[in-house]
Amino acid sequence: MFNDQLMVDNGVELLTEDACWALLSRAEVGRVGVTVAALPAIFPVNYAVLGRAVVFRTAPGTKLAAATSGEVVAFEVDEFAGADRSGWSVLAVGRAEVVHDLDVTVKVLEAGLEPWADGTRVNVVRVAPTFISGRRLVHD
Amino acid sequence: MFNDQLMVDNGVELLTEDACWALLSRAEVGRVGVTVAALPAIFPVNYAVLGRAVVFRTAPGTKLAAATSGEVVAFEVDEFAGADRSGWSVLAVGRAEVVHDLDVTVKVLEAGLEPWADGTRVNVVRVAPTFISGRRLVHD
Repeated sequence: MFNDQLMVDNGVELLTEDACWALLSRAEVGRVGVTVAALPAIFPVNYAVLGRAVVFRTAPGTKLAAATSGEVVAFEVDEFAGADRSGWSVLAVGRAEVVHDLDVTVKVLEAGLEPWADGTRVNVVRVAPTFISGRRLVHD
Repeated sequence: MFNDQLMVDNGVELLTEDACWALLSRAEVGRVGVTVAALPAIFPVNYAVLGRAVVFRTAPGTKLAAATSGEVVAFEVDEFAGADRSGWSVLAVGRAEVVHDLDVTVKVLEAGLEPWADGTRVNVVRVAPTFISGRRLVHD
């Protein structure tokens, strides 16, 4: 089905890139999909949007290891409500990199991006996606 | 840090396997991490727990393609609250398989597992994880 407003496929509306970024900007927790020892893994992070990139903080470990090696990661955010079966999701895919630029780090701190977990998470990781897509459940 | 009750690492409590299954059983929406065309992707699904396996329904497509090829997938569920920075997440990893056993399919239907999206999602996919881990944020 296709009209001027919506592109709907099997009960799912496909979102524009701008709509995807608007949704990414309003959520707080997303999930990073990486490969660890040849197996897929998903880790939740609280994050911020800076320009057209996603940034989050992390301690040295699997997510960071992925980031430092410049690995391509998946970043997903969603929001669903069981009561009316409504919801949306956005998937962004791109290379993850550790931020060494002090200007960017300052902006991240100014944006108030503090890890929700206690402990030390000194590294800032940035994903500027080369691919972004979003879907919203549509009911008749 | 270690005591009889908790194992805490950098602000995160590690959960037992039983605690992980208890949390998986009470949530409704999880995320499947797969590889599509050599790139990582994450898709949300509403799901149910049957025994020590996760089941969800899907239409033919990427998730199903992963499942039919017996690919190892990541399955993640989490719940976070920004107000007090509380939350937990569970990660399960295992081979995904399309369910052909009619008994299992009947149980899935009896469990009331209906896709939240409109449209046709006739296939039942099952992930019996070989690995499961969970974390909960702990604040002093």
